[in-house]
Amino acid sequence: MGLKGIKYAAKVDLEKPAAEQACLHNRWHPDIPSVTTITPGEPVKIECIDWTGGQIGNNDSANDVRDVDLTRVHYLTGPFDISGAEPGDVLLVEIQDVQPLEEQPWGFTGVFAKENGGGFLDELYPAPAKAIWDFEGIHCSSRHIPGVRFAGLIHPGILGCAPSQEVLETWNRREGELVAANTEVGREVAKLPEPVNVHAGSADKEMKERVGREGARTIPGRPEHGGNCDIKNLSRGSKVYLPVHVKGAKFSVGDLHFSQGDGEISFCGAIEMAGVITLKFSVIKNGLAELAMKSPIYIPGPVEPQFGPGRYIYFEGFSVDENGKQHYMDTTVAYRQTTLRCFEYLKRFGYNDYQIYLLLSCAPVQGHIAGVVDIPNACTTMGLPIDIFDFDILPSAPVQKRDMGSCAFASN
Amino acid sequence: MGLKGIKYAAKVDLEKPAAEQACLHNRWHPDIPSVTTITPGEPVKIECIDWTGGQIGNNDSANDVRDVDLTRVHYLTGPFDISGAEPGDVLLVEIQDVQPLEEQPWGFTGVFAKENGGGFLDELYPAPAKAIWDFEGIHCSSRHIPGVRFAGLIHPGILGCAPSQEVLETWNRREGELVAANTEVGREVAKLPEPVNVHAGSADKEMKERVGREGARTIPGRPEHGGNCDIKNLSRGSKVYLPVHVKGAKFSVGDLHFSQGDGEISFCGAIEMAGVITLKFSVIKNGLAELAMKSPIYIPGPVEPQFGPGRYIYFEGFSVDENGKQHYMDTTVAYRQTTLRCFEYLKRFGYNDYQIYLLLSCAPVQGHIAGVVDIPNACTTMGLPIDIFDFDILPSAPVQKRDMGSCAFASN
Amino acid sequence: MGLKGIKYAAKVDLEKPAAEQACLHNRWHPDIPSVTTITPGEPVKIECIDWTGGQIGNNDSANDVRDVDLTRVHYLTGPFDISGAEPGDVLLVEIQDVQPLEEQPWGFTGVFAKENGGGFLDELYPAPAKAIWDFEGIHCSSRHIPGVRFAGLIHPGILGCAPSQEVLETWNRREGELVAANTEVGREVAKLPEPVNVHAGSADKEMKERVGREGARTIPGRPEHGGNCDIKNLSRGSKVYLPVHVKGAKFSVGDLHFSQGDGEISFCGAIEMAGVITLKFSVIKNGLAELAMKSPIYIPGPVEPQFGPGRYIYFEGFSVDENGKQHYMDTTVAYRQTTLRCFEYLKRFGYNDYQIYLLLSCAPVQGHIAGVVDIPNACTTMGLPIDIFDFDILPSAPVQKRDMGSCAFASN
Amino acid sequence: MGLKGIKYAAKVDLEKPAAEQACLHNRWHPDIPSVTTITPGEPVKIECIDWTGGQIGNNDSANDVRDVDLTRVHYLTGPFDISGAEPGDVLLVEIQDVQPLEEQPWGFTGVFAKENGGGFLDELYPAPAKAIWDFEGIHCSSRHIPGVRFAGLIHPGILGCAPSQEVLETWNRREGELVAANTEVGREVAKLPEPVNVHAGSADKEMKERVGREGARTIPGRPEHGGNCDIKNLSRGSKVYLPVHVKGAKFSVGDLHFSQGDGEISFCGAIEMAGVITLKFSVIKNGLAELAMKSPIYIPGPVEPQFGPGRYIYFEGFSVDENGKQHYMDTTVAYRQTTLRCFEYLKRFGYNDYQIYLLLSCAPVQGHIAGVVDIPNACTTMGLPIDIFDFDILPSAPVQKRDMGSCAFASN
Repeated sequence: MGLKGIKYAAKVDLEKPAAEQACLHNRWHPDIPSVTTITPGEPVKIECIDWTGGQIGNNDSANDVRDVDLTRVHYLTGPFDISGAEPGDVLLVEIQDVQPLEEQPWGFTGVFAKENGGGFLDELYPAPAKAIWDFEGIHCSSRHIPGVRFAGLIHPGILGCAPSQEVLETWNRREGELVAANTEVGREVAKLPEPVNVHAGSADKEMKERVGREGARTIPGRPEHGGNCDIKNLSRGSKVYLPVHVKGAKFSVGDLHFSQGDGEISFCGAIEMAGVITLKFSVIKNGLAELAMKSPIYIPGPVEPQFGPGRYIYFEGFSVDENGKQHYMDTTVAYRQTTLRCFEYLKRFGYNDYQIYLLLSCAPVQGHIAGVVDIPNACTTMGLPIDIFDFDILPSAPVQKRDMGSCAFASN
Repeated sequence: MGLKGIKYAAKVDLEKPAAEQACLHNRWHPDIPSVTTITPGEPVKIECIDWTGGQIGNNDSANDVRDVDLTRVHYLTGPFDISGAEPGDVLLVEIQDVQPLEEQPWGFTGVFAKENGGGFLDELYPAPAKAIWDFEGIHCSSRHIPGVRFAGLIHPGILGCAPSQEVLETWNRREGELVAANTEVGREVAKLPEPVNVHAGSADKEMKERVGREGARTIPGRPEHGGNCDIKNLSRGSKVYLPVHVKGAKFSVGDLHFSQGDGEISFCGAIEMAGVITLKFSVIKNGLAELAMKSPIYIPGPVEPQFGPGRYIYFEGFSVDENGKQHYMDTTVAYRQTTLRCFEYLKRFGYNDYQIYLLLSCAPVQGHIAGVVDIPNACTTMGLPIDIFDFDILPSAPVQKRDMGSCAFASN
Repeated sequence: MGLKGIKYAAKVDLEKPAAEQACLHNRWHPDIPSVTTITPGEPVKIECIDWTGGQIGNNDSANDVRDVDLTRVHYLTGPFDISGAEPGDVLLVEIQDVQPLEEQPWGFTGVFAKENGGGFLDELYPAPAKAIWDFEGIHCSSRHIPGVRFAGLIHPGILGCAPSQEVLETWNRREGELVAANTEVGREVAKLPEPVNVHAGSADKEMKERVGREGARTIPGRPEHGGNCDIKNLSRGSKVYLPVHVKGAKFSVGDLHFSQGDGEISFCGAIEMAGVITLKFSVIKNGLAELAMKSPIYIPGPVEPQFGPGRYIYFEGFSVDENGKQHYMDTTVAYRQTTLRCFEYLKRFGYNDYQIYLLLSCAPVQGHIAGVVDIPNACTTMGLPIDIFDFDILPSAPVQKRDMGSCAFASN
Repeated sequence: MGLKGIKYAAKVDLEKPAAEQACLHNRWHPDIPSVTTITPGEPVKIECIDWTGGQIGNNDSANDVRDVDLTRVHYLTGPFDISGAEPGDVLLVEIQDVQPLEEQPWGFTGVFAKENGGGFLDELYPAPAKAIWDFEGIHCSSRHIPGVRFAGLIHPGILGCAPSQEVLETWNRREGELVAANTEVGREVAKLPEPVNVHAGSADKEMKERVGREGARTIPGRPEHGGNCDIKNLSRGSKVYLPVHVKGAKFSVGDLHFSQGDGEISFCGAIEMAGVITLKFSVIKNGLAELAMKSPIYIPGPVEPQFGPGRYIYFEGFSVDENGKQHYMDTTVAYRQTTLRCFEYLKRFGYNDYQIYLLLSCAPVQGHIAGVVDIPNACTTMGLPIDIFDFDILPSAPVQKRDMGSCAFASN
C-alpha cells in the first residue's frame, strides 16, 4: 500500500495575489462558477488565505490596517458543488480539522480605523491598531500584548452555501431599506453591493460584472445561510447544518480564525490566519422542512480549551450607556458596557486601551446574555479567563503596573 | 463539644404573609432599617421566600400567574449591616451554598401575561402560563414539561447593597427620563417608584411612606450595585464583589433560583423558589478605586453541571426580525430570533409553544453573543443541552410527535 | 397546599450511642432485621452517623484516632427492604443528594496507627494523626492543614445490598483462606468475623450473636455487592446499579465522605462525616442477567468540581520500590511510589509528612492507572489540583518554606 | 517577510527501513550519537515513525501482529542534545503539538500473541488481533470495530533523556535480579539487553555493539527518566519535567499515539501511528534538587475531549480474581477484574472479545484507583465514555445484538 493522505479540493498560493486565484471569490452570488464537485462522505482539505487576502503583514506598524481595502474582502475558497444537493436540502458539514498553514505560523488581530471599517467601540477607540500572534502548536502569544498566552479554539469565521437569486434579492432589498432609512446617522449601517475589486473566481468578464452589481458583500452573517457568523466554538469536530438554496449547494469557506472572543469586538477581532480546513459533507434531503430549520444550527466538537468555571473573572454590564443614559433593553449597549468594565480592570496592570481592545477581541472570553427581561435593563456578562495571563489578575492579587510595551499603531 | 451549626442571620416563615415579616423588604432605599449586623469572616445563613412572596401555588392553573400583583415584588431578605463597610469599599460576598427550603422542595416558572409583566416574547406569546418543578436532590423535573430533567445551577437572582440617596436619585431621574421619552411606545418601559404594597421591613409609618415615594423598584438590575442581575452561574462557591454606597453596606438578597437559562426569557423565567443561602462577607477598604470597579464583578464557583461541549445543539440568530426587517446591530433582536429557532426545532417533538417558552427560560441554555461587528447583523447563539431530555433530540434522530401533555394555563 | 418535604426513612441521634440506635448496624448479614420498607420511585432521606460512630472529636489531639475501636465500625444505616426486590434483580439507586448534618458542619481525616488499622503508607508513616475540616457550604478547610481549601465531591463510602447466606459463606471462606495463607507476613491481611461490639440493629440476642459469629466485616468492598467501595465520584446525581441477593434487597448505606482522593490512602482518608443522603430506588427485574453484571456499575452525576485539565500537576510512579527493588507489574507498588513523589514535592512548601498524607487522602486527587503492560513496570499517575492551594505550587513558582503549623498528633 | 514555518530537528522517511535512518535508535544508552543540537526556547518539529518501524500494515490480517519482531522496537527519534543541559538539571519539554503524518492518516491497535509480547489479559485472550483506525481530523474510526468513533487525545508514548552509565547499570542490575528471581513463573518478566536488531543511530560498528550489549530495552518506563510511560493525557499543550542524566540531556521521543485508554491493556494498545511532534525545550538548572524530583512530573494541556462526568458508565473491580481467589490489596488484579466487567457488558451488543480488548485499550477510558486501603480488597474503576458509541449503551437502553463484523485475526 502506498502513502496517501486526504485529498485537497483546493490549494492556495500565498505568493500570488488573491485576485488571481481561481479558487477564491469575495462576493455571495449564485452564479459564481464552482471550483470542483465534492462527493458526500469523502473528506477533503480546503486551503484558505486570510480574509484580507494578504493585506496585513507580520510587522510592527498598523499602517496596513489603517489602509486596508475593504472592497476586496472577504476572500473565500469555493464555491464547491456537493453532489446531489438541491434547494430545500440541508448540507451537513463536519469540520474534521482546522490548522494554520505550516509555512505561515502566525496571525493578526486588528482594530480598524473608525472611518475604515470601525468596530464595536470605535466611538471611544477610533485609531487603527494591530497585534501579531505567533502560533506555538495549539497555543499563541504576541509580542504586542505581553503576559498572555492561550490555546486557540480554531474555527472558520465564514462558511455557507450560495444564496439563490431570490434570497440574494431579499438581502439586497432588506439591507437597502436599512441604508435608506439611516442616511443621517453619521455612520455606514450596511455594505451594499459594490462593483469594485470584485473577484468571482473563474467567472468570465460579463459574469464578473454581474456579480459585482448584484453580489452581496460577505461582511454580515445572514439568517438564510449563516455566512460570516463568527462563532468561536464552531471549531474542530463540529457538525454544522446549512440551508441549501441552489443546485449543488455551492459551498464556500474562509476567514479562518485561530481564536476569537465572544463578540469579536474589534471587527478584525479574531486572530486572522491562512490555513487549511478538513471537511466532510453529507446531504440531508428535504432537510429544511424535516428540521424546521430557518438558520444554521450546529453541534460543537468535543474539544475546547478548558479553564474550569472558577477560573474566570466575570464582568457585569447593563443598558445604561457611558453618558449615563438609560436605554430600554438594549443588549448591544449592555455588552459594550460589559467590555468597558473589563478595560478598566485590565488597565491597572499596565496595558494600554488598544492592547485590551485587541485582547478581548481574540482571547476566549465568554460573552453571555444574562437577563433580557428586567425592564429597562438588559444585563450581559463577560468572562475573562484567568489562566491566559502569566501573572495573577485575581482581585485579591496586589496590582502593580507593568511595562507592557505596546501594540502596533499607525504612523501619525 | 456540643452540636452547633452555622448561625442564621434571618429566618422566614412560609405560613405568614411576606408583608408582615420584618426581615423582608421590596424596595431599594438607603433608609430601610437593618435586620441585624453581620461580622465579616463569619458565615451566616439567610432564608429567603420566593420573589412573589408566595403568590404562586403548586397547582395546575396559571390563574395565579395571570393575577400576580407586581407592586409587591421582589421580597428580599435584609438589609444587613456588615461591620466596617463604608461608601467606597467593596463588599466581597462568598456564596458558600444555596439550598431550597427543606419543607418546600418545589419551584415554579411563569410566563407572565403581556399586560401584566410580559416577557421577552410577549408579542408572540401573550398568555400567562406556568410550570411547577419538583426538586429531586440536585435535579428537577416538571409534570408540566415531560421528557426533561436536569441538575440545577442554583443561585440568587438578586443581591446587592443599598443605594445611597444620591445613587437612588440618579436611578429615578434616569429611568424617569426613559419613561418620559417613551410615552407612546405602547408598553411599559420601566417601573418607577410606586407607593403601593410597599414593604420596608421594620420601618415606621413615616419611613415606609418615604420608601414608597422614593424607593427604587427591584425589577431591573442596575450598574451601580448589581441587584436583579439574574446571572445563571453566580452560583455556589462564587465570590461576588459589590460596590458599597452607604455605611454598613445594607446588603440584601433574594429571588433565589433553582436554575435559569441565559436571558431568563419568560421574565418569571427561572425556577423560582424559597430557600436558604449561606454567605460569608469581607470588606475591601477603598475597593472601588483599587479595583477600578463601577459594576459588580464575580468569580464563579468550581461546580456547575457539565455536559461536554459536544452535548449542545446551538441555534444561530441574526438581527433580522420575524417580519423580515433588517435591524442595525441589534443584539436583542438577534437573541429573540435565536430563541425562536429553538422553538421551531422543539415543536417537532410535540411540545407546545408555552412549554418551550418555559423550558428555555429555566433550563441551563447557553446564550452567547457571537459577533457584534459585522454590520448590519449582530449574531447570537443559544446552546441547548441535549442531555436534559430523556429522548434523543439530535438532528440525526427520527422525529415523532409525542404526547407532551401541557403546561398550566389560566382559565379562559 | 401545606408544606411538605421529602420523607425520612431513618433519622439518627448524634447525642445517643450508635450501638443503641435501632436503625444502625455494623456487620453484613442477611438476617439483620429491616428498618422499614421503601417503595420504589419514592425519594427518601436517610441520615447516617460517621463511620466510627462518633469516636473522633473536633479537637487538636489524635489520641482518639490512636485509640479508635475498630471492632465497632462501620456503622451503617439500614437495612431497608425495597418493595419487590428479589435475588437476581438489580437495585438501581439514584443518589439525589448528600449533605452534612446541619448541626455538625465539620468532618475528620485520620492517619491510623500502624498497629491499629494502618494505611497505604504505614511502613513509612506509622503514627496516628488527624485533621479536622470545617465545612463552608460546598467548600472545606482545615486549621490543621493551612493553605488549602476545596469543594467537596460528596459521596457515600459504603452502599450495598445484604449478602445472601451463600454469598456470605463465600466471603468468609475466601478471606479465611487468605488469612490462613499469610500467617507470617507480619500484618493483618483481612478482617474475619469478630463477635465483639456487634450491632445488628433491632435483632434479638440470639440473632445478634449469630450475626457476630457469621457476619462479614464492613471494611472491604467486595465484588458481589460493592459495599465499602470508596469511590470518589459516586456523588450527587449518580445512578448506581447494585446486585440483589436477598428478598427485599436489604439495602444499607453509610460512611459518608465530604471528599476523598483516589486511593483514600490514609485508610480513614476521606473527610468522614455524619450526614443525610437522599435516594430514590428502582428495581430492575432479572437485572443481573440482563446487564451481564457481576459487580456494581454506576453513572456519575453531572456535577463535580472542575479544575480544567491544565490545572493539575501530575506525578509519575513505577513499580520499583523505595529500596530500589524491581517488582513485576505491581500497580500497588507503583501507586505508592507515585504518592511519595507528591510528598517530596509538597514538603518543599513547609508541610510535614503527615499533613501531606492527610491531604492526599481526602483532596480530589486523580489516581490513574497509566500503563500496565510494559514489563516489568506498571506506571501510575497522581494528578494534584493546583487550585486547592491558596499559594502558587507550580514548578515555576519560587519556593519558600512557610509556617504550616501542624496536623493533630497523639500525645507521646 | 518571506514564508517560514517551524524548523524540523529531524525528518523520517516512511519508504525507507527504520534501521537505515540515522535519526532513529531503539535502545537507551548514553553513548548513542546525537542527531543535532537544539537551542532552548526555539520550537522544533520532530518526525517519528510508528514504534514497530512499519512492521504493521493497513490491512485485514493480524499476521503481521503475530509475527512482529520485538527485538527491533521501539524506534525513537533522537537523541538530541539540548544546549546547556547537564546532569542534575531538569529538562522542561513543552509539547506544543502532535499530529499524524499527513501522508499516513491511519494507525493501528494490536493484541499481541501471548507468546510474543502478550498483554494484560493474555491468559484469557492469547491470540493476536488487530484494528486499523482511520483518522478523520481530530476523530478516528475503525472498520474493525463498528459503532464507535472518538476524538483522539494525541500524545507521545515515550519521551525521556538518556540514562547515564550509572543509571543504565542500575536498570540492568535491577531488572536482571527480577529475571533471576522468576525463572520459573512461566512468562517473561522483563526484557534485558538483547544485541539483536540493535539500532544506535549513526553509531559506528563498535559503539553499536556496545549499545547492543548494554543498552536498556525501551519497553518499560523507568522511574529515573520516564521513557515509555504511556500516559494518555500527556498530550498537546503539556509541559513535562524530565531528569537530565548526561551532558546535553540526549532527549529522545517516539511511540506516538493517536489515543490510548488508561492501562493500554492490550500492550500494543494505543492507536499507534507515525507523526510529527512540535516541542520547545527549557533547561532548569539544578532542577532535580530544586523540585525535589525523582521521576518526571507534568502539567497537562488545556484541551482534551470532554464528555461531561455523567457521560461515563463506571465499572467496579476488586482484588478477587476470576477463579474466586482473594488477593491482598492487589491493584493489578483489581484492574484486570474491572476491565473484564466491561467486556461482559459490551459483549451484549454483539462485539467479540478481541474487539472489546482492542477498544478498551485505545479509547479514552478512565482507569482510577478508587481505594487501596480496605483490606484485603483494592478497588479500581473504569469509566467508559458513552458518547464514543453511535448507539445507546446505557443500562436503560434495550439491548440487541448487532452485527459488529470482526477485528482482524491471524490466519490459522
